[in-house]
Amino acid sequence: MNRSYLEAFLPPTRLLLGPGPSPVAPEVLAAMAAPTVGHLDPSFIGLMSEIKTMLQLAFGTKNDVTFAVAGPGSLGMDACVLNLIEPGDKILIARNGVFGTRMCEVATRGGAEVIPLDFTWGTPVDPHAIESALQQHKGIKFVGFVHAETSTGVQSDAAAIAAIARKYGALTIMDAVTSLAGIPIELDEWGIDAVYSGSQKCLSCPPGLSPVSFGPRAVEHVKNRKSKVLSWFLDITQVMAYWGGDKARAYHHTAPVNSLYALHESLRRVHIEGLEASFARHRAAHLQLAEGLAAMGLELLVDEPYRLPQLNAIKIPASINDAQVRASLLNDFNIEIGAGLGPLAGKIWRVGLMGEGARAEHVSRLLQSLNTVINMQMNEALPLAS
Amino acid sequence: MNRSYLEAFLPPTRLLLGPGPSPVAPEVLAAMAAPTVGHLDPSFIGLMSEIKTMLQLAFGTKNDVTFAVAGPGSLGMDACVLNLIEPGDKILIARNGVFGTRMCEVATRGGAEVIPLDFTWGTPVDPHAIESALQQHKGIKFVGFVHAETSTGVQSDAAAIAAIARKYGALTIMDAVTSLAGIPIELDEWGIDAVYSGSQKCLSCPPGLSPVSFGPRAVEHVKNRKSKVLSWFLDITQVMAYWGGDKARAYHHTAPVNSLYALHESLRRVHIEGLEASFARHRAAHLQLAEGLAAMGLELLVDEPYRLPQLNAIKIPASINDAQVRASLLNDFNIEIGAGLGPLAGKIWRVGLMGEGARAEHVSRLLQSLNTVINMQMNEALPLAS
Repeated sequence: MNRSYLEAFLPPTRLLLGPGPSPVAPEVLAAMAAPTVGHLDPSFIGLMSEIKTMLQLAFGTKNDVTFAVAGPGSLGMDACVLNLIEPGDKILIARNGVFGTRMCEVATRGGAEVIPLDFTWGTPVDPHAIESALQQHKGIKFVGFVHAETSTGVQSDAAAIAAIARKYGALTIMDAVTSLAGIPIELDEWGIDAVYSGSQKCLSCPPGLSPVSFGPRAVEHVKNRKSKVLSWFLDITQVMAYWGGDKARAYHHTAPVNSLYALHESLRRVHIEGLEASFARHRAAHLQLAEGLAAMGLELLVDEPYRLPQLNAIKIPASINDAQVRASLLNDFNIEIGAGLGPLAGKIWRVGLMGEGARAEHVSRLLQSLNTVINMQMNEALPLAS
Repeated sequence: MNRSYLEAFLPPTRLLLGPGPSPVAPEVLAAMAAPTVGHLDPSFIGLMSEIKTMLQLAFGTKNDVTFAVAGPGSLGMDACVLNLIEPGDKILIARNGVFGTRMCEVATRGGAEVIPLDFTWGTPVDPHAIESALQQHKGIKFVGFVHAETSTGVQSDAAAIAAIARKYGALTIMDAVTSLAGIPIELDEWGIDAVYSGSQKCLSCPPGLSPVSFGPRAVEHVKNRKSKVLSWFLDITQVMAYWGGDKARAYHHTAPVNSLYALHESLRRVHIEGLEASFARHRAAHLQLAEGLAAMGLELLVDEPYRLPQLNAIKIPASINDAQVRASLLNDFNIEIGAGLGPLAGKIWRVGLMGEGARAEHVSRLLQSLNTVINMQMNEALPLAS
């Protein structure tokens, strides 16, 4: 690039329709650039309380232990898994994409005995299979699963999975990275015990924060651990002395002040619009996309009942050069879409319509650009006219 | 406060002269608010390379494994300790303040056998005591210490400690949270094996990122581990597939894009000024403060040779109400200074002159305000005139 590092960095303006980060509203960027205050400043303590309230509403919970982990969604996964498991604990984890697979890795490193339960990528977690596994393996303490699989665009039935886990006395850990504010989440109604999400999906906040929530059963479990949580940084009994509701906040770590300004503003925008309106907007954008793709002869990977409105996996026709299409969208049209991962690499594109991305004008721009790029590629591939 | 969470948050404008965060330049805040791009965008990959180069220069190292952990300095501590230690490993950790104490806790949770070595808070780590401990306890694999103790304002002799550790075949882990860009760091010359810092101290970037660097011996050690690193998120063998120098970057986690814009801009400002000039500016601000305090009859906690210019621990006279002075500085003068921690609570104030804070006008404003506040308090305390 022949740049010197002493030059200022001016990023291009992309339309972010990949699997995240999603487009960030100018108001959120402006909030992020407000003057930094101290992490123990009384004004900042007030901001943290408001973030907690707005996260509780978005998660559908009254859980007191609801806050933003000071790192991306992957660290939120670490936070949920490592607070709950102890060495030797049995955890059943549904694997129907990248993130269930990752959860197995995280739990294994934490010393748990992981029982993976596989489903074809692009299909949901089958609650009946969860029940069979819970019957087959005695003493399973935790069930982990992904609500909205970002790698495939599949939604699983969180309420059904949580109900079964509870029936067998297991606590549930749910990945809600891509679901929060895009589709309904009702932690309390469903009985989910621990959940993590990410700032950069349907909240349309820059990446770097992971909203989490721990229910009363999970908190009780953590308090009764035999061993300490492996990570001091993630130990919720420590973090909550800082995020807790009382006035005498104890210093734990230095909170990412400006990132939390941005999260506050993005949550504020979600609640001003209203969660139901946000869900409807995501749904409308998805239907517009699905219709436009069908008109172009393109198909979605996931069966209709399990499709996530906010993450659309599009089957790449065999005649099309995957990488060339994505590169052209990025370089010629300033639109980012995502590639397939794992067994779906080269087989799907992932189009995220998350948060600010879930708007008719963005869907139209993508459909038009994609149509142009595909037509260009197919014309180039034609034999030369004689 | 009677605020609704639906109101926009407008923080007060504080002069941040506590132990961090430090004042952030408007240019850095503006960079943070640039449009978000994807974490695999070619332009962003370029930015990451430049950050790596600028961090290498600031750390005085050619270490290839130099990057910013996507979380605050405390997570950087986790990253260094948890990548290196394995269950049962012996680690000697010098404790002369909060952060050496914390490192003991982190290493203990990670399964290490921790040998703490205590020094009075406010005094430096004595390299001779390190050597005695290494002779006494056989098989110590790691030596951990804090270069610049933020809780006391003490600088320890990193070069001497690292040389001794190397003599006994131990790897060194150094906390450089408050030292980076405030006082010289020469990782390669000193032979430090792993180091972590923070964005919100002398780099004057908002909090939330932890620059780290691992030397060749540390990397070799990690590659030859018998067990996997406990945290998937922090495992440098995984992270480096994303931060590495080759073009085919693998997705690991979603980088905190806008926070890294800010880190790039703050590093750029450091290198445009020049490290030596930055050190000199910190030193000049410290001398100005020390002189002004002396004129007011106030004393510094730390003996002169071990004083950190960027973190000044001021003894609170017995007649003065600690909390009232700090509250008045904050509420009446919009200046944040820090309280004492642990055994020094109520006994010292901590004045940070870090990064943008290390400027004559800020020191003058603090001295004048502190003088006013103290005089007000002493006059109030006088018996009523008859």
